[in-house]
Amino acid sequence: MSSHAKAAWIAVDWGTSNLRIWGLDPAGNAVAHRISDKGMGALSRDEFEPALLELIGDLLESDGTTPIIICGMAGARQGWLEVPYISAPCAPPGIAEATAVHAQDPRLDVRILPGIMQSDPADVMRGEETQIAGFLAENPGHTGTLCLPGTHTKWVALRGGRVERFRTCMTGETFALLAKHSVLRHGLSADDVDQDAFRKAVTEMAAAPQALAVELFGIRAAGLVAGLSPQAAAGRLSGLLIGAELAAVRDEFDFAEVCLLGSDRIAKAYQAALDCHGCKARLLDADTITLSGLALAYSHLSVSSHSGARS
Amino acid sequence: MSSHAKAAWIAVDWGTSNLRIWGLDPAGNAVAHRISDKGMGALSRDEFEPALLELIGDLLESDGTTPIIICGMAGARQGWLEVPYISAPCAPPGIAEATAVHAQDPRLDVRILPGIMQSDPADVMRGEETQIAGFLAENPGHTGTLCLPGTHTKWVALRGGRVERFRTCMTGETFALLAKHSVLRHGLSADDVDQDAFRKAVTEMAAAPQALAVELFGIRAAGLVAGLSPQAAAGRLSGLLIGAELAAVRDEFDFAEVCLLGSDRIAKAYQAALDCHGCKARLLDADTITLSGLALAYSHLSVSSHSGARS
Repeated sequence: MSSHAKAAWIAVDWGTSNLRIWGLDPAGNAVAHRISDKGMGALSRDEFEPALLELIGDLLESDGTTPIIICGMAGARQGWLEVPYISAPCAPPGIAEATAVHAQDPRLDVRILPGIMQSDPADVMRGEETQIAGFLAENPGHTGTLCLPGTHTKWVALRGGRVERFRTCMTGETFALLAKHSVLRHGLSADDVDQDAFRKAVTEMAAAPQALAVELFGIRAAGLVAGLSPQAAAGRLSGLLIGAELAAVRDEFDFAEVCLLGSDRIAKAYQAALDCHGCKARLLDADTITLSGLALAYSHLSVSSHSGARS
Repeated sequence: MSSHAKAAWIAVDWGTSNLRIWGLDPAGNAVAHRISDKGMGALSRDEFEPALLELIGDLLESDGTTPIIICGMAGARQGWLEVPYISAPCAPPGIAEATAVHAQDPRLDVRILPGIMQSDPADVMRGEETQIAGFLAENPGHTGTLCLPGTHTKWVALRGGRVERFRTCMTGETFALLAKHSVLRHGLSADDVDQDAFRKAVTEMAAAPQALAVELFGIRAAGLVAGLSPQAAAGRLSGLLIGAELAAVRDEFDFAEVCLLGSDRIAKAYQAALDCHGCKARLLDADTITLSGLALAYSHLSVSSHSGARS
């Protein structure tokens, strides 16, 4: 990887909190992989192009245009350009459904991929559809459950390579708010999570998910009167919330075959929680899969460009 | 009420966020009722006496001592002086269980009432036990369910005038965090709550409490793709959370006879939610009941002082 290499095209995953890019050479090898904190949430509309140029400027050829394929929140209402959702059930969107953005800089050929919406029950995703496309590139025609863990975890039912339905759980965001800002913060370890307490809480929620509301404050009370350790308290809070999530989705999503698109601490927590339900879930690297999905879109852009050039 | 009247004794409800006092004359009439934001959470140990004096200094007789009866978080570990809990099942504590605090100012005769703890399941209260004492003063020997709504709502099973067991739900705090800091904040009315959406959500949670984790993000999604109004979103969030709480406590607490110690917006939301469960709960004024509980403690202090003087 040379810092002076130019990119044949650039893959962009523009989340709410972060902006992540890969510069790719013609063979599909990454010549650059960079991250900035200029996520959609930090930007007004006219700040998107400068934020992108700041991160990729040195990767651009000075003559000609470089294709930029973007997934995620850049296409949201508060993003660079609102890109309409496609509707589930559907195959994940490809380059044909992408929207071109008019950039000020003539070196940029920007396309934003759409997200997926669902009417009933109402749900939305932006970014995960491209990970799903990446997963399906490796697993064509797959049928089974995907779980994409994160601040807002997505559960996706795939059937024959199509997104049949999906649901979002804001468990990660709820955990962060309760752990940092609620009364529970007083007795919670930030780093060290007791796995036994985690698994016990998941199992409790599997048996009695309706008890969540009384068990949350119970963590604080057990710290005060029963000496619950900060490690056990952190494990219990995480286990109660992820356990309640699994109890909420288990009737809608088949736990017999779950692939987790993630390999970080959160993904491993979901894997451990699924194990309590007797499900051995596979962990897959989310970064690799995101790039696969963007590369798939780019491959069809190239074909359609060549077609265009031939006609 | 004269601003120059002195108090025969002073009742204090010292919460986490606020400090509230009543100055009472010998007949038990309030000569002052004041509130400050110097709750326990804002004070270090040596700031309690100055915070109290700031609020009550002009009510004190210059010669002699004035009894100060305190309930709430002044007795917590982070409070003025840690006062050990008494253990449920028990009658609410009275003045005999109070702990005297040595104050710097000789005009102050300070007593802090203890809270109540429960070992299994672990739970704690500080302040509510005095409201329960006040309620029982009006309803001696009562059997039934008390609900004390607030940031941390308490559910209490009373049997023959004793606290048989209780549970705490941090629903109010969770609602505030989700409404102000989560992704849900984007589509939520702060003031205007749609009652139909509230009742529908409570009813849904009564039937399927395990669905909470998927329904939360659904509020945001319905705002994006189905035009859910901010008023309906606020009603739905409140209804889902209070509905989940009722589903959590209904097997432990008898809904046939519920008294709500509160008359504010939160108490009315609980009343409406209980109505969805077919329960007609009574609303009682929490301030009046808190003062009744503190006055009950003072009345026994007076008796024991008189006894002491006679012996």
